[in-house]
Amino acid sequence: MEVPIYIFVALIAGLISILMAYYFKKKVMKEDPGNERMVEVAGYIESGAITFIQRQYKTLGIFVIVIAIALLFLPSTIPDDLRTVKFLNWEQSFAYVIGALASMWAGWLGMKVGVKANTRAAQACTIGTKEGFNVAFFGGAVMGLAVVGAALIGVSLLYIWIPSPFLILGFSFGASSVALFAKCGGGIYTKTADVGADLVGKAEYSLPEDDPRNPASIADNVGDNVGDIAGMGSDLFDSYVASIVAAMILAAAIIVGPELPLFIILPIILCGVGLIASLIGIFIIKWMGSDEPGKALNTGTYLATLLYATLAAIMIAVLATGVSASAAVRLWRNYLATVIGLACGIVIGFTSDYYTREDKKPTSKIAHAAEEGDAVVILSGFSYGLISVAPPAVGIVIAMAIAYMLDGVFGVAMAAVGMLAIVGTIVANDAYGPICDNARGIAEQGDLGEDVIRVADKMDSAGNTAKAITKGFAIGAANLTVLALMYSFAQEAGIEVIDLLSISVLIGAFIGVVAPAIFSAILVLAVQRNAGKMVREIRRQFEENPKILTGEEPADFNRCIDIATKGALRELIIPSIMSIAIPLGVGILFGVAALAAFLAGAILSGFVFAIFMSNAGGSWDNAKKWIEDGNLGGKGTKAHKAAITGDTVGDPFKDTAGPSINTLLVVMSLTATIFMAFLLIFNGGAGLLAPFL
Amino acid sequence: MEVPIYIFVALIAGLISILMAYYFKKKVMKEDPGNERMVEVAGYIESGAITFIQRQYKTLGIFVIVIAIALLFLPSTIPDDLRTVKFLNWEQSFAYVIGALASMWAGWLGMKVGVKANTRAAQACTIGTKEGFNVAFFGGAVMGLAVVGAALIGVSLLYIWIPSPFLILGFSFGASSVALFAKCGGGIYTKTADVGADLVGKAEYSLPEDDPRNPASIADNVGDNVGDIAGMGSDLFDSYVASIVAAMILAAAIIVGPELPLFIILPIILCGVGLIASLIGIFIIKWMGSDEPGKALNTGTYLATLLYATLAAIMIAVLATGVSASAAVRLWRNYLATVIGLACGIVIGFTSDYYTREDKKPTSKIAHAAEEGDAVVILSGFSYGLISVAPPAVGIVIAMAIAYMLDGVFGVAMAAVGMLAIVGTIVANDAYGPICDNARGIAEQGDLGEDVIRVADKMDSAGNTAKAITKGFAIGAANLTVLALMYSFAQEAGIEVIDLLSISVLIGAFIGVVAPAIFSAILVLAVQRNAGKMVREIRRQFEENPKILTGEEPADFNRCIDIATKGALRELIIPSIMSIAIPLGVGILFGVAALAAFLAGAILSGFVFAIFMSNAGGSWDNAKKWIEDGNLGGKGTKAHKAAITGDTVGDPFKDTAGPSINTLLVVMSLTATIFMAFLLIFNGGAGLLAPFL
Repeated sequence: MEVPIYIFVALIAGLISILMAYYFKKKVMKEDPGNERMVEVAGYIESGAITFIQRQYKTLGIFVIVIAIALLFLPSTIPDDLRTVKFLNWEQSFAYVIGALASMWAGWLGMKVGVKANTRAAQACTIGTKEGFNVAFFGGAVMGLAVVGAALIGVSLLYIWIPSPFLILGFSFGASSVALFAKCGGGIYTKTADVGADLVGKAEYSLPEDDPRNPASIADNVGDNVGDIAGMGSDLFDSYVASIVAAMILAAAIIVGPELPLFIILPIILCGVGLIASLIGIFIIKWMGSDEPGKALNTGTYLATLLYATLAAIMIAVLATGVSASAAVRLWRNYLATVIGLACGIVIGFTSDYYTREDKKPTSKIAHAAEEGDAVVILSGFSYGLISVAPPAVGIVIAMAIAYMLDGVFGVAMAAVGMLAIVGTIVANDAYGPICDNARGIAEQGDLGEDVIRVADKMDSAGNTAKAITKGFAIGAANLTVLALMYSFAQEAGIEVIDLLSISVLIGAFIGVVAPAIFSAILVLAVQRNAGKMVREIRRQFEENPKILTGEEPADFNRCIDIATKGALRELIIPSIMSIAIPLGVGILFGVAALAAFLAGAILSGFVFAIFMSNAGGSWDNAKKWIEDGNLGGKGTKAHKAAITGDTVGDPFKDTAGPSINTLLVVMSLTATIFMAFLLIFNGGAGLLAPFL
Repeated sequence: MEVPIYIFVALIAGLISILMAYYFKKKVMKEDPGNERMVEVAGYIESGAITFIQRQYKTLGIFVIVIAIALLFLPSTIPDDLRTVKFLNWEQSFAYVIGALASMWAGWLGMKVGVKANTRAAQACTIGTKEGFNVAFFGGAVMGLAVVGAALIGVSLLYIWIPSPFLILGFSFGASSVALFAKCGGGIYTKTADVGADLVGKAEYSLPEDDPRNPASIADNVGDNVGDIAGMGSDLFDSYVASIVAAMILAAAIIVGPELPLFIILPIILCGVGLIASLIGIFIIKWMGSDEPGKALNTGTYLATLLYATLAAIMIAVLATGVSASAAVRLWRNYLATVIGLACGIVIGFTSDYYTREDKKPTSKIAHAAEEGDAVVILSGFSYGLISVAPPAVGIVIAMAIAYMLDGVFGVAMAAVGMLAIVGTIVANDAYGPICDNARGIAEQGDLGEDVIRVADKMDSAGNTAKAITKGFAIGAANLTVLALMYSFAQEAGIEVIDLLSISVLIGAFIGVVAPAIFSAILVLAVQRNAGKMVREIRRQFEENPKILTGEEPADFNRCIDIATKGALRELIIPSIMSIAIPLGVGILFGVAALAAFLAGAILSGFVFAIFMSNAGGSWDNAKKWIEDGNLGGKGTKAHKAAITGDTVGDPFKDTAGPSINTLLVVMSLTATIFMAFLLIFNGGAGLLAPFL
């Protein structure tokens, strides 16, 4: 199949993006890293983060090699005829490895810059908010640009090499494998450290946040980097590529006529346009500068959205000149689908923000519930978290319905592409958060004084809002993406109906609905188990060496880092196996239609659990912060104590289980598609139990 | 259509059951009600319970009249031709009212006896465990027998009058309306009182459980009766009738041939057999007597199961003599389906028991987590609660699959019937619980001494286990029942496929999956809001009149009862409207296929939430009790405080939201079926948005 020249829009945008990432990196590195103590603390964080990533990549490397070999021997479909089965498909296996490497590289670069930007941002805060903001924002932008650049270059080059969506599927599966490790592992790491540090340091010894005497304080800061920068980056890398591949597969399966090659690469082209919009947006924010970090980040998001809508319209107008009238209409319809998707993503992001902001009703109610004690604050946060599922669900349903009206399931897939088009901006905003969080910690540990800490706090607060929005956005985007993947799976497997009246389909859906619940529970338990070890280690250090508490001797940070690292990697095993074994098992036992229903069930229930856990956690966190700001009596009151309980419960909800569900869903959907040819050969896709059901 | 004579098996069993209920009532009333103080306390509980039920029935009365009139003007299907539409269907409207009245009567009788049995059981405990057990067990049996008797008599008489399953549908809808009020309202009432009493009395003033100085103590005892006796009774009444009607509708739609009349009443006949099995089981337990209440209750359940399997086999052998060979095989296949269903119910019940027992791993882990503080005990209970969904889900899936293999969707419906066949025993065991709980309170308030309280505690503990089993059982039964209802809805609406690849179907399923989450949240918030009012009232009483705390003056129980009563009835409004409006809205906007998918989504997600909330709550409760028994340092320790937080969070989970989901599911499924003719006339069942999707 011929590859339209327009694919170079994406390739060139990707290359510019990578160049900009290195330019921003250089700019950040040139900044003043601050005083000796700050450099020391930042050094600890950096070495902790690098140690974790290295160990993680080592384990991941083994995983990737095993899967790559398995893919080699798995029956697959050959490039130019999607329905013909091929064995020894080394191209897909190769694309898989490239996908994994690209995601690993982006995560590595983003995190390397993140751990350099934190101390530099803290130092810049001594000059002013604007200066501090700029350093942190550039630091975050590196991650955003690296993710999108690596993804687009990878996808374009592979497609230019062999124009088959199934090669891109391999690339996407590789990125997903990384995301599974980075998101779940990072999520477990960060909350092991955070919960451990809070339970002993804050609750038992009344140490303030980020106090250097707390042995887990460095691990906590490391966690922000590995969980929120590398983890979230790889999560969105994963969704981004998956949304592209789902749309490509659907285009290849559905669209007929001479314009097919153009439609297949339409998602790649529009993502290229989205990247350009993100780039311009980032520059405008930089050029405007801002004393109000929160406003600047939101302006950036809105700008990128508007720029995307404009530039994509121009692009579509160009594309539409060379095609038939009906194809031109179809291009415009899909353009609209992407805009609807993007708008929906923004709306979901902002409802997440509404439900987690302390000046809005839900979180305010939760904060007031803290006055009634621990149990009431938990009940309140639990309930509002569940209720917060309704608005984004309505948003997704409307976006889905409109996109479907515009161009059927391909329209839905394009809505997912649109939602992720400005992902560069989204990841940049998100990575800004942990840099500020770390900067605040370093300012505290480096004795930069109350004023600087206040500036860092202001930046941090904007980062938290950005994080809430990003999380909602990431969940919405992943949801729509896996939906598109489910459609593409069904299309390719030749499934004509997924009939809930069929008992095997119903059983598939049942298992699908249950899976995210179990997965969440396993991750929360993992955090609880590791945090318990961390708690015992911190207590041991305080008891065995009382000089740590007086500040005369330094705490042993490395032991805590070691506990978090080992625990996170060990606890990854079960979720990783589950995410591949369960869809495979459903497919083998109940057949491909049941597997599609399984995916649908998992998508719907995963959406509920992901939004609930993220928003409940965010609410509890902000309710606690609001009380700490002096409301309801402030720190040390009974209400504050209850709010801390809420926050501690919310930590693994919002930073481990909730966001990991996205990754789980993508991995499961891709697993289904990758194994499809195997299932179809195996027994015609009917399932071993088919004769009885 | 002719009505086979065998229906009289059910009618006669029902009549015997009612007679036995009155006989047991008389036996209970003859017992010694104890000393003056006990009679006084029991009097308070009785008058509180009766006040609540009266007010509830008044509101319910208005609701029932409105719905009855609406049903009158709703297009419906005429008795002898299920597909022809009829207007002014006064028969169905009449059956609806009868269904509501039958359920109200059973609840009323059961509760009246319950509030008499409590003080008598307490007094009998002064003689011995066996004597105490007998009184409490007979008291509970009245509820069990009244529920099953009223249901079977109502169903049989209506069917003898006009042999149409759609008349029974009206009866079932009536019972569901009552269940919605009794279960949600009772659930809110009981936990408003319980949480309020615990938060102030136990936590702030360190009063023991059931202390007469606590102004909410009577309301707490009243709550056990209205929530756990009347509420659970009406819940199982509801599922029981719904399982019968689902199987009847499916039989009428699927089965052809001269044996159709027999198959239509097969569920009624087998329920009659099940009732006889329950009756014999109850007598054997009484005859055996027991110093070990827990063992006696479990023996009763096993006995009833075995008796059902035996007696139903004999019944089937009799029925099979007069029919064709193929019909005989079909009878036996459906007999097996009922046995599989019943076995599955027992398994689900016992897994609930496993996950909530303090001597098993999950609850023991939760109890140990309490040592790490409030947040960790919450995280632990939350996670194990979610994990506990897996085994019953596997159980249901296996039962569903086997039943389907035996006789398709009719087999699945018959499995639900089988699961509920021994519901008399189940309700009896369940109602035993609150009687013992009350008896313990009365023994405490009537100063019967430590030894008697210990006996009452032993009985209470058996009651808690029975309650855990019943809850799992009720959820499993309701789940299979609504599944059968979904099939019968699809069958009657002429839906051939419920295709998840259709966007409107997917949207229906999406809304369905979200609904139980929102519903749970609304109920938990209702409890939290009311408990807050209760807390303020108790504090006010203690502050304004210090003599209450010294025991010199009695607390004002009535104010607390009033708060619980009014709050419960007010908070009912939104869930009631939701349960009718949402399915209706989905049907009108997206069509009947989407409505069926909505039901499927709600069933699957409802199962997850119901099991999770019931088991998490039960676990927290028992972890707390285990610590209170002196483990991990016992009462007053930090671990105990944390365990109380867990228990308080778990209270509305396990006694309000979790079990109410069953009722919600049944009401929504029946609403769909009742409005089906309307939706089909309205626009052919396609949905208003169909032209666009």
